[in-house]
Amino acid sequence: MNIDGAVPAEMTAIAIPAPGGPEALVPERRPVPVPGESEVLIRVAAAGVNRPDVLQRMGKYPPPPGASDIPGLEVSGTIVAAGSESRAVVGQRVCALLPGGGYAEYAVAPAGQYLPVPDGYDIVEAAALPETLFTVWTNLFERAYVVEGDTVLVHGGTSGIGTMAITLCRLFGIVVIVTCGSDEKCEQARQWGADHAVNYRTQDFVAEVRRITGGQGCQAVLDMVGGDYVPRNIECMAEDGRHVSIAVLGGPKSTLFLPTIMAKRLTLTGSTLRSRPVSFKTLVAEELMRVVWPMVAEGRLRPAMDRRFPLAEAAHAHARMDAGQHFGKIVLTV
Amino acid sequence: MNIDGAVPAEMTAIAIPAPGGPEALVPERRPVPVPGESEVLIRVAAAGVNRPDVLQRMGKYPPPPGASDIPGLEVSGTIVAAGSESRAVVGQRVCALLPGGGYAEYAVAPAGQYLPVPDGYDIVEAAALPETLFTVWTNLFERAYVVEGDTVLVHGGTSGIGTMAITLCRLFGIVVIVTCGSDEKCEQARQWGADHAVNYRTQDFVAEVRRITGGQGCQAVLDMVGGDYVPRNIECMAEDGRHVSIAVLGGPKSTLFLPTIMAKRLTLTGSTLRSRPVSFKTLVAEELMRVVWPMVAEGRLRPAMDRRFPLAEAAHAHARMDAGQHFGKIVLTV
Repeated sequence: MNIDGAVPAEMTAIAIPAPGGPEALVPERRPVPVPGESEVLIRVAAAGVNRPDVLQRMGKYPPPPGASDIPGLEVSGTIVAAGSESRAVVGQRVCALLPGGGYAEYAVAPAGQYLPVPDGYDIVEAAALPETLFTVWTNLFERAYVVEGDTVLVHGGTSGIGTMAITLCRLFGIVVIVTCGSDEKCEQARQWGADHAVNYRTQDFVAEVRRITGGQGCQAVLDMVGGDYVPRNIECMAEDGRHVSIAVLGGPKSTLFLPTIMAKRLTLTGSTLRSRPVSFKTLVAEELMRVVWPMVAEGRLRPAMDRRFPLAEAAHAHARMDAGQHFGKIVLTV
Repeated sequence: MNIDGAVPAEMTAIAIPAPGGPEALVPERRPVPVPGESEVLIRVAAAGVNRPDVLQRMGKYPPPPGASDIPGLEVSGTIVAAGSESRAVVGQRVCALLPGGGYAEYAVAPAGQYLPVPDGYDIVEAAALPETLFTVWTNLFERAYVVEGDTVLVHGGTSGIGTMAITLCRLFGIVVIVTCGSDEKCEQARQWGADHAVNYRTQDFVAEVRRITGGQGCQAVLDMVGGDYVPRNIECMAEDGRHVSIAVLGGPKSTLFLPTIMAKRLTLTGSTLRSRPVSFKTLVAEELMRVVWPMVAEGRLRPAMDRRFPLAEAAHAHARMDAGQHFGKIVLTV
């Protein structure tokens, strides 16, 4: 193993001694993790906060087998130790998708799941990229195979996922309609690049999507609401449209009218990212490196940044996400 | 137009003066239809009876715009007139997929929707091929993209669709599990070639599919039941499985648990055949001609034949289908 001599034995990490509200997140002293032969150890500069972290904090989304019990699915920082099979370079600035363990001073990542942070790219912003980029890319571009000229509907237009979807749609020539919970958020989403933003509290998004698409409907929906949103999404989809579920924040059950699915030849699918094997995430990382990373290097793909909190104030970061007043990504800094 | 001089002006056809039971099917005298420039006129030898004909008879499935009000979605016979753009040969023995109008002595078909009946192939059996072959091919092989080695679940194992699915699965190396409503039908389905047949009245098909697949589940489901079958189908599907709805005989609404779809990355889709444009059906016919028709010519692909009824006894044919005691295809002969 190639290792930077300055790695300490212990670190500060944010643990969840018992599920609960934001205050359930407690700084603890933990041993610095040791990377395996095909892993790297990252000295964390920043860790992205994501909705699954909130669910994990509440005890509703246990870490998969083998993953750290520390929350945190993405970090940026510097490689300080590399397993012999990793081909990684100690000292390299990277951002990485993790199975967990990101809310800490040091984190271990599979060697296939990090991407280089280009020179001049803000290391803290880089921490806000992996989770939403892997999620939106695999679901919207691969699973729903959206292509240039398609119109897509994305709920939660000001969330990390929503803002990343807007960014990628703009870069790849896709018309994006988002929904948000206030006129102010709609305006923020439009300023960020959404072609259309619908206030779901005051407008019927089904009618709006139909109006915007001239009655034709949209080609794809990226849905994290579930429940009664799914049949409504279906109502505003075009023939051969694709519907992808990535979360069920509004409820896990949906009642569907099958003849509509048959008549419009719709496809409904979905996925979870965290449970996928390293081999899959490595393939995605390689594809992102090839297709998307040039845009990162050119500064054309940047995450929408909400606030930054020191690692020890993870509870405040979660309180902000719980309140739902953020725009884009909340990040913890070390 | 190239035309056989012996075509009369009038013919006998089966009409539906008012929706109802089998007795709603009434022989009438009608003008022989005139083919358009890219159509052919077929002197009908036999017409297949299909479930959508029953729904049409009951007033629940109106013909699409422009289609004949006479029921019947498939025929075999001889081309007796060909539009100048059809490139068809008068005198050729063919079977054809129709938008309607098959229960008659003469029927018009789009020139792209007929396939040649090989020498030595029973012309009456040929009438039983198009509807189920186009339906199973497009849904199971294209929409659910089953491949050699997959295991599929097909409900209604003794229906026209079910028996065609069994036949195609055998020819293409796919393991097929069917469900049927009696032990006798299960035995018939197994004799026809089903790898496994589950009596849905006495056995839990979810448990059976899991048992048969060693707990892994099946790769695809061809469903014509809908309702509470869809969530049960989902329970017995493997990761990355595909679910295709082609009818909703058990009810049009299904309540789905989205986290299962996400965790297993399932795909749910469906289609209707009759409403598709001629251009689509022509593409399917060309693909069937290339991939499947050699097996028809070799006698390796034959439909499961139930009973034959004279055209004038269409009501008896429907009564048999309504009773659900048939195995395979019911056909009307002229």
